[in-house]
Amino acid sequence: MSELAERSGLPVATIKFYLREGLLPPGESTAATRATYDESHLRRLRLVRALTDVAHLRLDAVRQVLAAVDDDSLSWHEAVGAAHTRLVPDPAVGPVPADAQVTSLLERHGWTLAADSPHAAVLARALDALEGLEHPASDELLDVYADAATRIAEHEVAAVGEEHVAAAEQVVVGTLLLEPVLLAIRRIAQENVSLRTRDRR
Amino acid sequence: MSELAERSGLPVATIKFYLREGLLPPGESTAATRATYDESHLRRLRLVRALTDVAHLRLDAVRQVLAAVDDDSLSWHEAVGAAHTRLVPDPAVGPVPADAQVTSLLERHGWTLAADSPHAAVLARALDALEGLEHPASDELLDVYADAATRIAEHEVAAVGEEHVAAAEQVVVGTLLLEPVLLAIRRIAQENVSLRTRDRR
Repeated sequence: MSELAERSGLPVATIKFYLREGLLPPGESTAATRATYDESHLRRLRLVRALTDVAHLRLDAVRQVLAAVDDDSLSWHEAVGAAHTRLVPDPAVGPVPADAQVTSLLERHGWTLAADSPHAAVLARALDALEGLEHPASDELLDVYADAATRIAEHEVAAVGEEHVAAAEQVVVGTLLLEPVLLAIRRIAQENVSLRTRDRR
Repeated sequence: MSELAERSGLPVATIKFYLREGLLPPGESTAATRATYDESHLRRLRLVRALTDVAHLRLDAVRQVLAAVDDDSLSWHEAVGAAHTRLVPDPAVGPVPADAQVTSLLERHGWTLAADSPHAAVLARALDALEGLEHPASDELLDVYADAATRIAEHEVAAVGEEHVAAAEQVVVGTLLLEPVLLAIRRIAQENVSLRTRDRR
């Protein structure tokens, strides 16, 4: 336990808290008050910290994500869907507005969605809110996003090796930890593009 | 008040709560127990709902965002920076890891960052977490993100009109409500690309 604390850089109290909360599997008991932990525990600790500190998930969301990670029965594609579905905050809140714009986007790009996919509802709700604030997202803008997202996804899918860790964990890490990377880079680009173009006007 | 409730679709109790919390400015008093509200109140209610329901901000973050929106002294570019800075959750948590990869990314794309910009730290921390989970983001991937983000920002900046609403509100709406749109589209693209490529292997 003290070695685990040292290698992870986390206080023993935090590790014990994760154990109690079921976020970290118990070590192998070697005596009444001793247990051994291995590399998988260290890795799990790093994942929990990344999900809380970098992806800013709450503990109940972390627990759901770990359940997807630990479900070995899923194919890579199913894992993507399961991780996404579990990651969407409260997809059931409120009515889903009409989504003609979403349907048309999917058609233009030849995309299909799993029956239980939350993305169409998330998208429809965001587009509806933008419309209500007189800041509608044009089809043209959605296509710019879609083309960028396709290029990104093709690169990511091609770059992921199949061997070194379980598929579901790759999906979760790739989705949840690369999203902050993408958003930070988008904001940096936005600041720089705005600096170059707007303040010259 | 009852008309505001009807047009916004929100319960009177919710509107009163926002008034008490200072998220909605008071109406103009016309009698001891009556006040009139105008279109700006309706618009503000829609913004608060969008920030909570679509962008999933907590009330204290909503309050900070509204402070940026209401600050008329900012230029468009300053508003981008101010909105971003206030939107980053807890940028000060924990030490910032070495960021040679971030510095090199900025150099490759000719980007600069304001001295108080939180993005470099956010990015460095996310990249560090990915590295710790044996899922490092390559410079090549960051460049794919950066090129996509630049195209997106150029399109967004060109598309935003200058007239109809205050600059800071455009920035906040554009950043916070378009991010869920971008992420949802990214996830849809990821599912579809993974369906087409991985499950064939």
